[in-house]
Amino acid sequence: MVKEVTSFSNPLVKHARSLREKKQRRAEGLFLAEGLRILTEAREAGMLPERIFFSDGSHRLVQALIEAVEAAGGEAVETSEDIIHKISGKENPQAVIGVFRQFDTGLAQLDRNAAPLWIAAQALRDPGNLGTILRTGDAVGAGGLILIDDCVDPFSVEAVRASMGALFTQKIALARWEEFVAWLRGGPGQLVGTSLNTEQDYQAPRYAAPTFLLVGNESQGLPAAYEAECDLLVKIPMLGKADSLNAAVATAVMAYEVLNQRRRKG
Amino acid sequence: MVKEVTSFSNPLVKHARSLREKKQRRAEGLFLAEGLRILTEAREAGMLPERIFFSDGSHRLVQALIEAVEAAGGEAVETSEDIIHKISGKENPQAVIGVFRQFDTGLAQLDRNAAPLWIAAQALRDPGNLGTILRTGDAVGAGGLILIDDCVDPFSVEAVRASMGALFTQKIALARWEEFVAWLRGGPGQLVGTSLNTEQDYQAPRYAAPTFLLVGNESQGLPAAYEAECDLLVKIPMLGKADSLNAAVATAVMAYEVLNQRRRKG
Repeated sequence: MVKEVTSFSNPLVKHARSLREKKQRRAEGLFLAEGLRILTEAREAGMLPERIFFSDGSHRLVQALIEAVEAAGGEAVETSEDIIHKISGKENPQAVIGVFRQFDTGLAQLDRNAAPLWIAAQALRDPGNLGTILRTGDAVGAGGLILIDDCVDPFSVEAVRASMGALFTQKIALARWEEFVAWLRGGPGQLVGTSLNTEQDYQAPRYAAPTFLLVGNESQGLPAAYEAECDLLVKIPMLGKADSLNAAVATAVMAYEVLNQRRRKG
Repeated sequence: MVKEVTSFSNPLVKHARSLREKKQRRAEGLFLAEGLRILTEAREAGMLPERIFFSDGSHRLVQALIEAVEAAGGEAVETSEDIIHKISGKENPQAVIGVFRQFDTGLAQLDRNAAPLWIAAQALRDPGNLGTILRTGDAVGAGGLILIDDCVDPFSVEAVRASMGALFTQKIALARWEEFVAWLRGGPGQLVGTSLNTEQDYQAPRYAAPTFLLVGNESQGLPAAYEAECDLLVKIPMLGKADSLNAAVATAVMAYEVLNQRRRKG
């Protein structure tokens, strides 16, 4: 049964809109994802929203989403474009918004042997970078993203948007550094940090699976103690005036090197 | 002579703030750059603002900037943190803001033989992507960025910020597609597009200098006619569910491949 909502002050609208705030997301364990493409990707990965808002149910894929949500016991809410806009806060909102339950983000859920590559980011601050790193992780066949120390919320609207759906296909774990190191050293894994404090070129070493790429904070890089824990420190060559790359770019350059080595081995 | 400004309604403050709007930037041929790091990078590249706002002149590098600006006939304005915040519009504004004159963005100013690599982006929409591509261009030793068709303004506050100063070290040109192709074909240059419509792996070809990497719009990719004009179409492998990378990430993966080939040749 599709519910119809026409008022901005409807509690469902207010509730969805409140999930743009981290505090509210955390309190409820919910988050928002927007857009037909991202929600369809989620559905194909077996993830359905508990509630879906839509303004135009005529599209085949919107219909498929509504049916899947209702079949799983969720709720479909038909509403106006204006209300979708209000929930989204975006200038050109897409016509579908889902309210999803947050996933388990414990380290224990990760099976490190399920993928040859994992990405770990420390104190990442920018939600666009976080989402972009997830998207790159999906592309290179990474298992997931481990967010170390105080990172931006992976369930923020901006991060979900920048991930283009990879939030639903990549595993995500949150951990303090000590907790991560203890978990890492409890099994196989090569911890590789990018750093300015080494002369080792990033194309020189042969990376061993599972490789854990460790990326530091956007402006500070990795703390010295974290670099010291790495099995390998490598440097991406930079010929220009600046001494650093954007964090998501540096991650991608490293991740494609790991993938390319694996491709060459056949 | 440092001028002091304490009022939000001061015309210099209003003027600087107005440069956050593209229309105003275009009308005046000016733009804003913020932060000590970016302004110092600009100064080292020989680019000085016509006017500099600062709230704390005690820092050695701020002092160096003020002196350089005044020596070049520019104006230094001491003001409060609150007013800097108002101009910047950023939560944590940095303590220095410069008002710069826009550069020549004609194709004619580019010396294609000055660098082995150039980046061309078509209908790029996101200022963060634009700035990040400039930053990557600086790192890989590219000569500059050619913005084709309707791209986001490279002089926008967000693009300048994301470039981390590379706006001042990379050449920037704006051109319609036809104009770009005519210019390109008037000299040496290999036009390389990334595309889903090819089986050619991006690591297979040997790139020839000057290489022009062509990146398409974030959601549409390159138009078919533009792909047809390319000397080479290549594909970055993607193993996951998604069929595309973030535009700045794709550019970086390509640009590092070109750089790495050049490094191997010695």
